[in-house]
Amino acid sequence: MTRRFYAPNLAGLGVAVLLPDSESAHLRRVLRIEAGDTVAVFDGRGGEYVARVEQVEAAGVLIRPIQHVDQTSEPSVALTVAPALLKGRKYDEVVRDLTMVGAVVVQPLATARTEAKPRDTERWTRIAVASAKQCGRAVVPEVRNPCSFHSFVAHDRSALKLLLVEPGVSDRATAIRSLEREPPPSTATLVIGPEGGWTTEEIMTAVNGGFRALTLGRLTLRADAVGVSVVSILHYIWGDV
Amino acid sequence: MTRRFYAPNLAGLGVAVLLPDSESAHLRRVLRIEAGDTVAVFDGRGGEYVARVEQVEAAGVLIRPIQHVDQTSEPSVALTVAPALLKGRKYDEVVRDLTMVGAVVVQPLATARTEAKPRDTERWTRIAVASAKQCGRAVVPEVRNPCSFHSFVAHDRSALKLLLVEPGVSDRATAIRSLEREPPPSTATLVIGPEGGWTTEEIMTAVNGGFRALTLGRLTLRADAVGVSVVSILHYIWGDV
Repeated sequence: MTRRFYAPNLAGLGVAVLLPDSESAHLRRVLRIEAGDTVAVFDGRGGEYVARVEQVEAAGVLIRPIQHVDQTSEPSVALTVAPALLKGRKYDEVVRDLTMVGAVVVQPLATARTEAKPRDTERWTRIAVASAKQCGRAVVPEVRNPCSFHSFVAHDRSALKLLLVEPGVSDRATAIRSLEREPPPSTATLVIGPEGGWTTEEIMTAVNGGFRALTLGRLTLRADAVGVSVVSILHYIWGDV
Repeated sequence: MTRRFYAPNLAGLGVAVLLPDSESAHLRRVLRIEAGDTVAVFDGRGGEYVARVEQVEAAGVLIRPIQHVDQTSEPSVALTVAPALLKGRKYDEVVRDLTMVGAVVVQPLATARTEAKPRDTERWTRIAVASAKQCGRAVVPEVRNPCSFHSFVAHDRSALKLLLVEPGVSDRATAIRSLEREPPPSTATLVIGPEGGWTTEEIMTAVNGGFRALTLGRLTLRADAVGVSVVSILHYIWGDV
């Protein structure tokens, strides 16, 4: 199996670059890869290459992309997912799993019933990088700094804006299946609530701001797991699965 | 919020029963619920009631179902999911999440490339109970004792038998979308491989045994997370979402 490394400063075919420190250390000390070996590298923006390792030293690992790799795993709809913050380490799994299922932006939200405090966005970015490495994605989603629900809803500019709600909380909600009747959007946003759900005021604000209230159906899914389920179904509806 | 308790020995409306020890302790010592209070109880087989707490003592908690609750959250297709065992505690999450998305049987499998040892099935059953409590399911999936892949494939009797494979590993594999053209089955089985994937021999054995090799599409999902994604899409295809 070819090992895969994240090199955000890749400058194209033939141009040697240094790996980031953490990637260098992993290549050199853990995997004991040597100069002359071949690895895979990706830039986090969709670029992926086969690369030759040119130099392995404590000061840095130099790699040179020698062959472009077609990356076909990105979904056609650029999806921003904005889940409410969760307590403890659960948001780590949210970031990891949304990376796995193909989100391009993860926007942590503070909502009326959010009990969690914002944590370190850099930590979540590292988790997104690790998940992209593991899942073969060449895109690392951008993990944004947490913002308030109202600010996000007021400024989001996606072509399709979705707010996931529990069945019965809004008479303006439609089943996720209703999206089948429409062509896939160019860009979409999915907003996911906290464990305690939305306030009526939040739902109204979102709906008045152009968001569609969407229900998932019969089962009640945990806040930390519902993202994988909904995003999988959205990609299925949009022809990406 | 009405608290929900698991009472597998429920005998119907009006018949007082004791809660299991762990549920009694939780009700009495953690939640400090008292005689006269109202709780929700479910039997793990689809029965759910509002119940009156009649007696709260160290020796046991007696509850009496006073009103039947219509449970509409069960998917219409009875789905058995058989994921290969995983190392460490990851299988706990598999059991928890498959309970959440509506599996009725979880069958841990030992496959050619399974590196994990079977663990305590009782532990997984407790996890399934906890997940059903949390997600509002009145059905607790049956967690079976681990068995070998070959034995399971030879004996499974579901109407539709699916083997999840990576794209490209079998020229007889079809995309999950192909299921749209068929009516929902009465019962279905979904077999999920280990982190190292299937051997060619295992795929042949399953296909020769009436399993359909199914691919999920572009993204590579982790073995511990792929179940939620695939089961969500299956329920969507079968009209249950």
